[in-house]
Amino acid sequence: MDKNKTVSPGSPQQVKRICSIGAGPIGAGWSAYFLAAGYEVNSYIHQASEEASLRALIDNAWISLTELGLAEAASLDKLKVTTDLITAVQDVDFVQESAPEDLSLKQTLFKQLGEILPPNIVIASSTSGLPMTDIQQSCATPERTVVGHPFNPPYLMPLVEIVKGNNSSQQAVDWLVAFYRHAGKAPLVLSREIPGFIATRLQEALWREALHMVENKEATVEEIDFAIVNGPGPRWAHLGPCMTFHIGGGEGGMAYNLDHFGPALKLPWTRLEAPELTQSLRDELVEGCDRQAAGRDYITLLRERDSGLVAVMKAIRECNDKASGL
Amino acid sequence: MDKNKTVSPGSPQQVKRICSIGAGPIGAGWSAYFLAAGYEVNSYIHQASEEASLRALIDNAWISLTELGLAEAASLDKLKVTTDLITAVQDVDFVQESAPEDLSLKQTLFKQLGEILPPNIVIASSTSGLPMTDIQQSCATPERTVVGHPFNPPYLMPLVEIVKGNNSSQQAVDWLVAFYRHAGKAPLVLSREIPGFIATRLQEALWREALHMVENKEATVEEIDFAIVNGPGPRWAHLGPCMTFHIGGGEGGMAYNLDHFGPALKLPWTRLEAPELTQSLRDELVEGCDRQAAGRDYITLLRERDSGLVAVMKAIRECNDKASGL
Repeated sequence: MDKNKTVSPGSPQQVKRICSIGAGPIGAGWSAYFLAAGYEVNSYIHQASEEASLRALIDNAWISLTELGLAEAASLDKLKVTTDLITAVQDVDFVQESAPEDLSLKQTLFKQLGEILPPNIVIASSTSGLPMTDIQQSCATPERTVVGHPFNPPYLMPLVEIVKGNNSSQQAVDWLVAFYRHAGKAPLVLSREIPGFIATRLQEALWREALHMVENKEATVEEIDFAIVNGPGPRWAHLGPCMTFHIGGGEGGMAYNLDHFGPALKLPWTRLEAPELTQSLRDELVEGCDRQAAGRDYITLLRERDSGLVAVMKAIRECNDKASGL
Repeated sequence: MDKNKTVSPGSPQQVKRICSIGAGPIGAGWSAYFLAAGYEVNSYIHQASEEASLRALIDNAWISLTELGLAEAASLDKLKVTTDLITAVQDVDFVQESAPEDLSLKQTLFKQLGEILPPNIVIASSTSGLPMTDIQQSCATPERTVVGHPFNPPYLMPLVEIVKGNNSSQQAVDWLVAFYRHAGKAPLVLSREIPGFIATRLQEALWREALHMVENKEATVEEIDFAIVNGPGPRWAHLGPCMTFHIGGGEGGMAYNLDHFGPALKLPWTRLEAPELTQSLRDELVEGCDRQAAGRDYITLLRERDSGLVAVMKAIRECNDKASGL
């Protein structure tokens, strides 16, 4: 039941011009990404002095975006840089806001955008932690405002987490999913506002364990990076943690894994205590992996995992060889 | 100060024959890896009935090992499979034990190995959690016993964590590092026995946060894998968590990152509480990243990061296209 005001944005496939707010790595990264996807981009920067570094960031991103493949219509000439917000949002079909992570600053910005932008234009915030419920508080048209949190660098990582605030409309979310997907991103809609969203929560758990380990002289900074790069990293890049354990469990999959390694959840293998491994939690994990396996048998999954790992590790090896001049 | 008995193994570069104990994915994975590196391998299995599945696992691993490049001397014909432990260790230069994770079983095995193996042959245990101090308890020659914990699949992931028990000698550790490195692995020596070693601790923190999220309906199994694969996964595969944040911090690096995002350590972005970000912890992280940067400036690091991410993501994209028959 959506009790919020509705919004009727245009077709997400027909977006032509985008306003990207912010001159930092996230704002510049989005600008570069949208340009590479063929859009016209109005980049709003706070001060004229930021233009040089904005353009340098975009030029750097362009190298990688070219390697990954530009859209036919892509051109750096489609970038306009301005310090005037009204000019920046003129005739745009979508706004991606990547201003500094300061709640009152974002609230002021969303109040202004609410006034100067036609009410059917969706506004996404790149915030990595502030709830949209707070950001949209002074906005007169909050129904079209949604979190669209990218992962750094936004011109390379596909993930964008989408989170509603209390006054966001479902139409804005649906529009944003369709738009990001059309633009080549991998949108992930959260069912509710949780601190850190999904990816950052998982990343942060690992990061905090790493900080504890450095603090307690259990591992150095170098050892932590070395362990991840040569151990779980490539598996996560290719499969994620759940499917890694599903395939690691052999023919028995996640069910075998949980039944076998369940007791390890009681061991002090991290400072984070595990939840009780109830039957329902176990079943949910098993079923989630089965859904992702989608009927592929064990040997097929095994071969796909191995091909993925070989490809990832070959790619990294070649990059490192190139970087070290081999 | 090493008060333990010393051990004088032969040259790690002159190992010819290896005994690999265990018919499961770890034991079979090691056997395949050592065969691909050109060694003769005596594979000890508990029951003759395990031979078929052992050989199937090795055959599967061989496909990937061939793609990564076999040693000139590599041959599947150098594999001998036996259920007799004395035959298995005959004339071997090294033993890699990957028996089931059962302490009393491993204690019995190490007692036997201690009796039948010449005292200068190093024995490594693949255990992912049992302390060598416990495993070596009934072994008459514990000084040559060390944990050598691989990451699954051991024929693909380079990491091997090396941990001494109370009665292990430093020579055995040094020998093992030199041997694994010669054999193409990425050894990581722990300064002391900590539960879960290094990589598993970090992996386990992420995994437990994931379990909590599923339990609390914050994310589904699919959403967790999707978030990691499209977000932090490729960065971890290429750089690890610390260098990812170092480069993400821009010109200011890890120092900027910690000074800027330090307050986020107090936020409930995971269920794991962070340590106090003291000046000394901050400095240790900054210095660790600077050591890894080894004089490369920001723009060089940025270009290397981007090349790595482009390569990893292209590799995964091609694999997924192949798997889905595109």
